[in-house]
Amino acid sequence: MSSKRYLITPGPTPIPPVVAAAAATPMQHHRSPEFRALLLETLDRLKQVFATENDLVLFTGSGTAAMESSVANLLSPGDRVVVASAGNFGQRWVKLVRAYGIEPVLVEQPWGERLDAARIAGAASEAETAAVVVTHSETSTGVVHDVEAIAAAVAPTGAILVVDAVSSLGGVELATDAWGVDVVVSGSQKALMSPPGLAFASVSERAWGRAGRSTLPRYYLDWRLAADSQVKGDTAFTPAVSIVVALRTALDLILARGPASVWEHNRLLARATRAGVKGLGLELFSPDDDSAAMVTALLMPDGIDGQECYTVLRDRHGIVLAGGHGPLRGRIMRIGHMGYMNEFDIVTALAGLEMALGELGHTPPVPGGGVAAATALFAAQPVPVDG
Amino acid sequence: MSSKRYLITPGPTPIPPVVAAAAATPMQHHRSPEFRALLLETLDRLKQVFATENDLVLFTGSGTAAMESSVANLLSPGDRVVVASAGNFGQRWVKLVRAYGIEPVLVEQPWGERLDAARIAGAASEAETAAVVVTHSETSTGVVHDVEAIAAAVAPTGAILVVDAVSSLGGVELATDAWGVDVVVSGSQKALMSPPGLAFASVSERAWGRAGRSTLPRYYLDWRLAADSQVKGDTAFTPAVSIVVALRTALDLILARGPASVWEHNRLLARATRAGVKGLGLELFSPDDDSAAMVTALLMPDGIDGQECYTVLRDRHGIVLAGGHGPLRGRIMRIGHMGYMNEFDIVTALAGLEMALGELGHTPPVPGGGVAAATALFAAQPVPVDG
Repeated sequence: MSSKRYLITPGPTPIPPVVAAAAATPMQHHRSPEFRALLLETLDRLKQVFATENDLVLFTGSGTAAMESSVANLLSPGDRVVVASAGNFGQRWVKLVRAYGIEPVLVEQPWGERLDAARIAGAASEAETAAVVVTHSETSTGVVHDVEAIAAAVAPTGAILVVDAVSSLGGVELATDAWGVDVVVSGSQKALMSPPGLAFASVSERAWGRAGRSTLPRYYLDWRLAADSQVKGDTAFTPAVSIVVALRTALDLILARGPASVWEHNRLLARATRAGVKGLGLELFSPDDDSAAMVTALLMPDGIDGQECYTVLRDRHGIVLAGGHGPLRGRIMRIGHMGYMNEFDIVTALAGLEMALGELGHTPPVPGGGVAAATALFAAQPVPVDG
Repeated sequence: MSSKRYLITPGPTPIPPVVAAAAATPMQHHRSPEFRALLLETLDRLKQVFATENDLVLFTGSGTAAMESSVANLLSPGDRVVVASAGNFGQRWVKLVRAYGIEPVLVEQPWGERLDAARIAGAASEAETAAVVVTHSETSTGVVHDVEAIAAAVAPTGAILVVDAVSSLGGVELATDAWGVDVVVSGSQKALMSPPGLAFASVSERAWGRAGRSTLPRYYLDWRLAADSQVKGDTAFTPAVSIVVALRTALDLILARGPASVWEHNRLLARATRAGVKGLGLELFSPDDDSAAMVTALLMPDGIDGQECYTVLRDRHGIVLAGGHGPLRGRIMRIGHMGYMNEFDIVTALAGLEMALGELGHTPPVPGGGVAAATALFAAQPVPVDG
């Protein structure tokens, strides 16, 4: 068993050494002027990554906490909410909305499909709809849904549009203001290449209006409490100071490179991953196009269990990929390509996958064919080394 | 202005270097066997510090998130809840309970007083009471309330007893099971000398019974979701992995020393702080006895504003103490003595305080009298150097 670990999952993702070092600097008091300035700078930089001038609130919590904050701050009992779902994280919204006593109007599609903007807008226009809730990157299937098209289709209905961008923000374009997305929620541990523990929600004027009328209970996740403190660089409750310090450093790396350049980097890694998967004689489960920007899902060859492959990779080779959720458990494996990853992380994933599948009885059409396909693509479209 | 900072507050508290280094180790996946084992070990060690065999659930969040989880999991609309409050953190419970549409029965006492067990039990026995909620260490005043006496007095009423031990757990005795406390909530950033970002709740059988009947909405803070995952070393949502790793290391330090030895260490630091405050010719606001175990609050001399003293200490000397909350703002300053602190942190606080007060016009009866009183006490009762 290798003692060196390679984390090539769709989150948490590897932390750049300078970000990890920032997290380990001496603890500071959250009500000090230094931390206040740092929090304001962090929020300012986050807004650039969110592509928004809306308010942005930060919570200490998992991404799900920010998702829940959208439900608790926007809705009231009896509200009509459309939830679009084609995977595990779409289903999380269903559970969240139900936990607050509201039965959502479901626009469900099979896991792996793209959400259908027209169907979602149709459901939202059938009756007065408070909110429409969708997932941007459906990490369980590898599909990045077309939020731009969904936003355009939903706009005429007047419903508040809420987007789960936990596993997409910073890794693929999400033009919050230009596309007219009212609420975007995200977390620190995916494309933002920081430790897990912070979650965010951007809130449009329209969303604030609805939040002012919402009667669901909330305190820790109250947007107003958070925003009123954060406008001064303060937080309503003691924040995860060390992760804010880390995130501030990570955001500087991202903005120094430029968001569009980061998206292009991820696209290249994704293309090489898809080429490599096919080079191994495997079939893609996620789309064979640039919409699979954050994670590539591949189908297991006949007779090979994905969970077994996952375990072999992890325990014999030290490579941590992701398996499948729910109905896809055992059928697929997922390779993350977001955050602090580069071409040789993809090479490692593909080489490891070939070795593990070999141990389980699958021989690729050409030995080394996965790595060869990926490196050929990288040779044609080099990944900048500063990433 | 000094660029070296001394964090001598009641939280966040300084992080031992080995704990900070643990937080900066490479990110691991939260569903790996290594992390599962680490989480189970962390929960096991936490239970030792909680002195409980009850279930213990962990959330990524501030201490307030764990407080809110008690409200959301235990109560239902119309329930009778007694909230005892004699300070800022008692008032937080009032806000939390009201946020869920329940008007608490208040047992209020002036800030700085000890909670009265008989009054609390009296209020709980007046009518059927679902829960009694109290603060252990009221950080805003420096009083550690007598939870043992409160628990004994409340027991005959049958109400569930919920204790906020965010700023006490690990620093002063809290015998959860022996005293019969149903729910204890705490956080990572005080006596547990870890970064902020994790919160905990221990849940008795009786509390689980009530949680099973509670109808308030919750998802992220749902105890059952958390417990069902955590029994397998899993978490319902991506946890703050790096802070769990840090906490695991900090708990090892605490358990290697032994909880009772840590309490004694804090008592010594507190005694020396009180002696030093008096040596500076200042009056204590917190009790002049061992119940002020976690933080010492001192009254400002006539004509000196506590916020100004706080600013001078911080900006000219790099020392971060805490000021006063609410009605005590400007009237008191607070020195924390919990977690990774030792005798020379107290010496630093007292020497800095003398310098800052001198700059503001207050001369102590004897130059250096604060440090002299503290070191005399340390000479008589040495603090072990392994701390």
